Amino acid sequence: MSTNLAVIGGDGIGPEVVAEGLKVLGAVLPGVSTTDYDLGARRYHATGEVLPDSVQDELAGHDAILLGAVGDPGVPPGVLERGLLLKLRFAFDHFVNLRPARLYPGVSSPLNGVKPGDIDFVVVREGTEGLYVGAGGVLAKGTPREVATEESLNSRSGVERVIRDAYARAAARPRRKLTLVHKNNVLVNAGNLWARTFAEVGKEFPDVATDYLHVDAASMFFITQPQRFDVVVTDNLFGDILTDIAAAISGGIGLAASGNINPTKAFPSMFEPVHGSAPDIAGQGIADPTATILSVALLLQHLGHTEAAEKVENAVADDLAAREPGVPVRTAEVGDRIASRVS
Amino acid sequence: MSTNLAVIGGDGIGPEVVAEGLKVLGAVLPGVSTTDYDLGARRYHATGEVLPDSVQDELAGHDAILLGAVGDPGVPPGVLERGLLLKLRFAFDHFVNLRPARLYPGVSSPLNGVKPGDIDFVVVREGTEGLYVGAGGVLAKGTPREVATEESLNSRSGVERVIRDAYARAAARPRRKLTLVHKNNVLVNAGNLWARTFAEVGKEFPDVATDYLHVDAASMFFITQPQRFDVVVTDNLFGDILTDIAAAISGGIGLAASGNINPTKAFPSMFEPVHGSAPDIAGQGIADPTATILSVALLLQHLGHTEAAEKVENAVADDLAAREPGVPVRTAEVGDRIASRVS
Ligand SMILES: CC(C)[C@H](C(=O)O)[C@@H](O)C(=O)O
Ligand SMILES: CC(C)[C@H](C(=O)O)[C@@H](O)C(=O)O
Repeated sequence: MSTNLAVIGGDGIGPEVVAEGLKVLGAVLPGVSTTDYDLGARRYHATGEVLPDSVQDELAGHDAILLGAVGDPGVPPGVLERGLLLKLRFAFDHFVNLRPARLYPGVSSPLNGVKPGDIDFVVVREGTEGLYVGAGGVLAKGTPREVATEESLNSRSGVERVIRDAYARAAARPRRKLTLVHKNNVLVNAGNLWARTFAEVGKEFPDVATDYLHVDAASMFFITQPQRFDVVVTDNLFGDILTDIAAAISGGIGLAASGNINPTKAFPSMFEPVHGSAPDIAGQGIADPTATILSVALLLQHLGHTEAAEKVENAVADDLAAREPGVPVRTAEVGDRIASRVS
Repeated sequence: MSTNLAVIGGDGIGPEVVAEGLKVLGAVLPGVSTTDYDLGARRYHATGEVLPDSVQDELAGHDAILLGAVGDPGVPPGVLERGLLLKLRFAFDHFVNLRPARLYPGVSSPLNGVKPGDIDFVVVREGTEGLYVGAGGVLAKGTPREVATEESLNSRSGVERVIRDAYARAAARPRRKLTLVHKNNVLVNAGNLWARTFAEVGKEFPDVATDYLHVDAASMFFITQPQRFDVVVTDNLFGDILTDIAAAISGGIGLAASGNINPTKAFPSMFEPVHGSAPDIAGQGIADPTATILSVALLLQHLGHTEAAEKVENAVADDLAAREPGVPVRTAEVGDRIASRVS
């Protein structure tokens, strides 16, 4: 049975990096059929549409989605984020937002004295709850008595399923360590739910060592002791922040991959680089497609093509190790090199 | 008129570092009268009390408060944080939570190639609103249908006053740059209030250059381009996270000072190191009191003793520059050295 992939190139460098991701995918797993969807800032400016229901329904019929990046400075904040990216994460119940952080040989970290092997962890970010649900409102907007609220909603079942997924991932790794990150000394309602559920689900995984850190301390330890982390599980907003720190310390956002995963496979999962559309460098062929190619590896893994996934990850590692320091990246060349390594 | 200072040494290393802060304060500004308040984990364990109303009233009668650190592992999460620290921040309307980040000569940053001068910014964290207000609740606790909520409350006046304070601080610095950090692409209600207010108040400060970053991007740039920042203004929770990152990159939490400031002086402001009570090293005389001593400098600044404040900060800088790398800190010796430099 062949794989049907929906492709959303998006805006800015999105289509450029996605082209390289598809090049590598085609080389490692021939016969994937792809359908392009024109979504993002361009479509919004042209038609006012963000994600028509009919398109959402079509996307739902695919095995997975590969997304580049959407957005440009002309779109008001929130329109594409909430109308497209988060809409898909919520509609397709992507409760595991998977973001590996690994310092590859040949890549320089901004951290002093950190070697490959010192940074090798994965953040399991909850993807369908918390402050991202869009709850909240505004009173007396534009007046001196304006009040704006944002509400974080957390359900037992929502917290439990992502924590269980994170334990299972930790149990399958050599170090078998899981760190919960929250802020349970201030956000006592949600923090207590997370901590209690973490302890309870932990009983199913007696081999996994556990740890708890407040989000402020975890942010610090990502910088001062990244070796400390193996698998990290955290809520939607904390995960957003922590994974950008993780990207920064492991060589930058140009290498950071992510999977918006529904482990039940009831809906397609969506894979995307963590970076944005970078309009300033779009169209010049200089964006690094590595984050997208690593997102393709996560996609292959999710679809059960474990060997192909490993091939892609190893090819990326070899390519990064072979790059001449200081030589600027050419988007298509990176794709060509990695594709030829996996063929 | 002499200064009346309330002193809360607290738990763990708190009393040790506060003793050195007072030593330096006494040396630079003789005649400050101090009153000790026994608050924190010890009192909680002994009496069940966190902050009796009568103590809060007494504290309100002082010119300022110096706090070490409170807490130990035996106190449930949130009890002292919400019952004491946040209670005081809210009761005394400490809407400016001031946290400078500076890499001093002689201090090594975990960041590669970063020199003193590259990190010299201040975070103005809102201190009385947002997710810290304690709004939210729990439904069906301990059952499969449990729901826990946390609510971020943001008022126009609350946002406006801290933004105006941050602009004024930026206007008084050589680089005159202010960066707003929020997450207005997801938290659209609060984010829009912050961004709109930021733009409007900015008209009063035409000489201040402005910038906006999402909190995830800002967290990354603190690591990859700390030079980019001069004054940063942000909400309570984002400020909590960002200031721990700022502490990490500028040599660690042992050096990070903070002021919980009510600029109107209607209530006493409270000064405290960012670090916690560190029970593991308490009583050994090896905690670095520098963060507390720098908090004393912020206290002096707030009370109008600008020259004394500068003396303390310079003495700290000289002491840090003169330290032998690798030689462990002795708490009392650091205090002695800095006190003698300011006498
Ligand atoms: C674009 C934005 C909605 C998104 C998020 O906040 O999740 C992004 O920052 C990410 O990390 O994928
Ligand atoms: C102890 C805790 C309540 C506090 C906070 O979250 O503000 C601390 O982390 C800080 O930064 O001062």
